[in-house]
Amino acid sequence: MKSEHKEEMKARKRNIALKVAYDGTAYHGFQRQSPPVVAVQNVLEKKLAIIFGDSIELAASGRTDAGVHAYGQVVNFFTNGSIPIDRVPMAVNSLLPDDIVVKEAWEADEDFSARHSAKAKTYIYRMQQGTTPNPLTARYAWYERRKLDMSKMQAALDLIKGAHDFSAFRAAGGAPMSPVRTIYEAKVEERPGDMLEFTIYGNGFLYHMVRNIIGTVANVGLGRISVERFAEIMESLDRHQASATAPACGLYLYSVEY
Amino acid sequence: MKSEHKEEMKARKRNIALKVAYDGTAYHGFQRQSPPVVAVQNVLEKKLAIIFGDSIELAASGRTDAGVHAYGQVVNFFTNGSIPIDRVPMAVNSLLPDDIVVKEAWEADEDFSARHSAKAKTYIYRMQQGTTPNPLTARYAWYERRKLDMSKMQAALDLIKGAHDFSAFRAAGGAPMSPVRTIYEAKVEERPGDMLEFTIYGNGFLYHMVRNIIGTVANVGLGRISVERFAEIMESLDRHQASATAPACGLYLYSVEY
Repeated sequence: MKSEHKEEMKARKRNIALKVAYDGTAYHGFQRQSPPVVAVQNVLEKKLAIIFGDSIELAASGRTDAGVHAYGQVVNFFTNGSIPIDRVPMAVNSLLPDDIVVKEAWEADEDFSARHSAKAKTYIYRMQQGTTPNPLTARYAWYERRKLDMSKMQAALDLIKGAHDFSAFRAAGGAPMSPVRTIYEAKVEERPGDMLEFTIYGNGFLYHMVRNIIGTVANVGLGRISVERFAEIMESLDRHQASATAPACGLYLYSVEY
Repeated sequence: MKSEHKEEMKARKRNIALKVAYDGTAYHGFQRQSPPVVAVQNVLEKKLAIIFGDSIELAASGRTDAGVHAYGQVVNFFTNGSIPIDRVPMAVNSLLPDDIVVKEAWEADEDFSARHSAKAKTYIYRMQQGTTPNPLTARYAWYERRKLDMSKMQAALDLIKGAHDFSAFRAAGGAPMSPVRTIYEAKVEERPGDMLEFTIYGNGFLYHMVRNIIGTVANVGLGRISVERFAEIMESLDRHQASATAPACGLYLYSVEY
């Protein structure tokens, strides 16, 4: 039944892709939920259905958890709706709440899948450090009172670059798939307003992988874990050796490459 | 009765001042409201009462409207509570929600009034410009799709520097007081993320004055009003000549000088 339904969807004339940004604060993650729980997908599908005059089923590059934000989530859907592609962003944005914005829309090849065609993703993670928390970034960054050692954190991040088995940073209960991922870039930089910005760019990510890495790297920055111990944790392939998952609110899906 | 009550408050042993930051999104402005409406003052007074074991009545440097934010609102209150001053921020912050933070606390002279002793204030106003709105700043900046002319806006801002009658930018229904204020600094700068930041620093501000100035300066930036016309509007002393009030969400009370 399910695959029949999928064929029916693919029989529609157009495969439309969107780049979407959202503030995840008010939503129960990206992935569609049963009412009254509201996810970003519920809101997007409802508004797109109005614009396209069609039932809409989105596929996304990946889920984001409750409270996680996005600058460049990518989704696609099949439709027979006739609205010209260049009018899509304005039309949808006029119906969407302020915290979800369609940044771009394009006609994709019929084989394009926002989920399966993704080649790489970039995540950003923000931490605010300082003697007092900033209430204006409370829902947009992880707050840490103590000073974090930038060079030690960068040394730990250097260790995740390349192809590795990331089982130590994989959430329990994820789908059974290979735990090997390749990280092309991993860096931490200082930003104005006592903000630290981590950027991690790789060919794919296990469930909670970025937040588990950040949680452990932060403990390196606080001197609770040495860089050598970080390497051991990574090599242990054991989630119990790593630190607690960093809070969702600091995480941003920055971009997806196809 | 009222002044008797004031005397009773001033008879208390300590006059404590706080510097407070808040995200105004969830509140009906700063000034105390009757339940179920919640203002920042309601929340602060309730939590301070727990810490000080005393009923608390705050005076603030000024109100901020619903949706307006603050990095450096200053308040004071009289109390017989005995908690050491250096423990106040941590103690209160442990009870406050994430969107209100006490940044500093100090013992003030008995004559100090956060409202009446204020000598100058700085406001910041943020505008996001660009072809697509950023959902992550929707509640923290005014969004404008079109490009704003920076040098024309700065030329208009230069006109408000110095002592002027600001009746043209004064909200109807404000308290009857002199409409003359002195502006020491007024500038607009480009910030990362397509953000424009206006800074206005002066010895005092009429009700809605900053937002009315920004609303009119933005129309100069969009080419709807010339810089010469801006000067005429200011000189007209007539609120009806100026543009609509800029949205509350872009405004921040940055600091108060005593």
